Amino acid sequence: MLTSSAISRELNPLAQWAQTIKESAMRRMFDLVTRPKLISFALGLPAPEFLPLVACRAAAAAALTGNPQSLQYQICSESLKRHLQGLLASRGVNCREDQIYLTTGGQQATHLLVNLLLNRGQQVLIEDVTYEGLHMAIQPLQPQVLTVSTDPDKGMDLDVVEAQLVQGARPAFIYAITDGHNPLGLSLGQAERRRLVGLARRFRVPIIEDDVFGFLNYDGPALPPMRALDEEWVFYLGSFSKILAPALRVGWIIAPDAFKPALSFLKHAVDLDVTTLAQLAVSTYLETGEMPNHLTRIRREYGIRRDTMLGTLESCFPPEARWKKPSSGMFIWVELPPKIDTFELLTMAVETQQVAFMPGAAFSLPGSICARNGMRLNFTHCSPKQIEEGVTRLADVLKKLLARGKERSL
Amino acid sequence: MLTSSAISRELNPLAQWAQTIKESAMRRMFDLVTRPKLISFALGLPAPEFLPLVACRAAAAAALTGNPQSLQYQICSESLKRHLQGLLASRGVNCREDQIYLTTGGQQATHLLVNLLLNRGQQVLIEDVTYEGLHMAIQPLQPQVLTVSTDPDKGMDLDVVEAQLVQGARPAFIYAITDGHNPLGLSLGQAERRRLVGLARRFRVPIIEDDVFGFLNYDGPALPPMRALDEEWVFYLGSFSKILAPALRVGWIIAPDAFKPALSFLKHAVDLDVTTLAQLAVSTYLETGEMPNHLTRIRREYGIRRDTMLGTLESCFPPEARWKKPSSGMFIWVELPPKIDTFELLTMAVETQQVAFMPGAAFSLPGSICARNGMRLNFTHCSPKQIEEGVTRLADVLKKLLARGKERSL
Repeated sequence: MLTSSAISRELNPLAQWAQTIKESAMRRMFDLVTRPKLISFALGLPAPEFLPLVACRAAAAAALTGNPQSLQYQICSESLKRHLQGLLASRGVNCREDQIYLTTGGQQATHLLVNLLLNRGQQVLIEDVTYEGLHMAIQPLQPQVLTVSTDPDKGMDLDVVEAQLVQGARPAFIYAITDGHNPLGLSLGQAERRRLVGLARRFRVPIIEDDVFGFLNYDGPALPPMRALDEEWVFYLGSFSKILAPALRVGWIIAPDAFKPALSFLKHAVDLDVTTLAQLAVSTYLETGEMPNHLTRIRREYGIRRDTMLGTLESCFPPEARWKKPSSGMFIWVELPPKIDTFELLTMAVETQQVAFMPGAAFSLPGSICARNGMRLNFTHCSPKQIEEGVTRLADVLKKLLARGKERSL
Repeated sequence: MLTSSAISRELNPLAQWAQTIKESAMRRMFDLVTRPKLISFALGLPAPEFLPLVACRAAAAAALTGNPQSLQYQICSESLKRHLQGLLASRGVNCREDQIYLTTGGQQATHLLVNLLLNRGQQVLIEDVTYEGLHMAIQPLQPQVLTVSTDPDKGMDLDVVEAQLVQGARPAFIYAITDGHNPLGLSLGQAERRRLVGLARRFRVPIIEDDVFGFLNYDGPALPPMRALDEEWVFYLGSFSKILAPALRVGWIIAPDAFKPALSFLKHAVDLDVTTLAQLAVSTYLETGEMPNHLTRIRREYGIRRDTMLGTLESCFPPEARWKKPSSGMFIWVELPPKIDTFELLTMAVETQQVAFMPGAAFSLPGSICARNGMRLNFTHCSPKQIEEGVTRLADVLKKLLARGKERSL
């Protein structure tokens, strides 16, 4: 006779976690935004016209010149680590080369750290509204998710974090996006960075600090990330995807010394090493010394686009909508009246006005109604002209939806 | 007061699995084999002189010509899938494009399938002696490992597989390397392929079929893999690492239809997508139509190297050593008398004769003494001259070790 677990296996040999997945909103957006003529503010994409295509082509070709060794396995490019060390120092992060782990972009960095720190069913502490890729990374381990809300001015509510820890919560990690929060666009202040690091130390809870947007700052010098304050509890991750090119898929983790052997094992178990061709191309590009100029250029251009979007929102959007000016990153978060479901708005916007954004529900856990009245608008991918046009169209759809809501409530 | 789990967290915030890791032998070898003057038969590397460096450089440069879109995120290159479909058809595997999932080499394919199918603590069915990367992939899920021995002529012992299943074992999967077994060099016969597929169907147990060596066959046409016999229970994986270039890190999974949504989710959660630059470079290379010629060339050259190694073993190795002629793959497996520990032999060989191989213990589970008298010799990476030289040196070390053993037992 079959046991009940054997019966369930007969019907479905998928691992249990995989029987509960929801389709990724991000993934669906990849399909949607390829529609011709659509103006998309949906994804966190760099502007195609500022991607250094010629320089990357030259770097990829140079990486494959001369030595066939460049086509073999290569665990980690020492030269890339050296250049990365310099780049991170410019952000206030000092680390040794042996603390650097290369990853396939920021998503793999997140996924590796989750698997390094989290036991199945254990607690994690994250914001109500946060990066969808973090939700995807934790789902197979089915953790108990403790959430904290996010203050529109100060970021993650550290009073709640402290209260949870004092009351005995011991999460495997706290996940925080220090600058250019995805999707909320916020950055933590200096006092908040210090306080969160202090809590991590006091309660011995690791922080996963996601800094993929930290190099994109628009209002003068940025604050150093939390990794500049602590190297024992802060696991720092970043990526070249937003600042150089997504197609290269090169990111990094700076890990505390105690975790290095396990992280080496895990990275090797997952896919041996980061695509050597991409490592070499990024390294060769950094060798040219062009990165600082490139960063200066995209900061200036993305700053213009941010201001264009803010100005157009100001002039077109109805007074019921609220937003903040982000000092870094790629996104403006717009909060609409609670009765608005931005999934519905998105459907109308795409169908009637050919314009797309990311609806707030994509950034909360399945089943939560948190953020369903929010919309994430990317300001880096479209030209200033497209931004004006797209935001104006979006305002039209929104006004119609609000008017319809008023009719209904009459 | 702290609970005991809170106390253990205080001491070590690593996930539990990570507290039990052993260092990867493969990873240590990467360090070892970079020693100058060392002749290494240790790793499964292609011959550097046959890596198509010029063509890959041209392909990488062409991939980044014209359209900046090539530097954005790109989930999966349709053109690469189309070419891959043709390549697989030449191996007898027919599939639709939507059944193809690109991966970061064969290791990521293995890791994804393990995570797709295996619940923590569940059973898996593998050979006593198998690919180390599979051990690494399953370790975080701490499965109950059921093992079967491998017959030197017929491969995985299917009588034992059947007996285990009849007695009620219900593993999450059976892992099998159909051709050019790593490390044993064996290939399953046609009857065994049919029988294993029959068992998978009868007991509704998925097979992970690792075919990364299947295109490297040296004695006339190869048999089609098990995926050619079944597309409901066989998860087929392969890679361009062994047949084109490891540095590109492009592999694939052909998945049964029922598993596609979960596999999409998992791949996205793990690292969004395979490095676009590498996808485009492989696709552009395949577009040139050079792949069949390249395969013909490396089959011919690797066949010569295999025969050189077999000939040198025959003429130099002591009669206590045994091996078989592999019809495909990259390895010859040499079995020594049970008293020999090939880790000890390796140390002597590296220190006294500057020659390296992979010791058998690397391919059995931690704690097992299985295969500790085996050695895996790669025959593709070194030139025929180096093979003669290295095998001769290795024979000297081995004879010394055997003589010392005889002295001791006097």
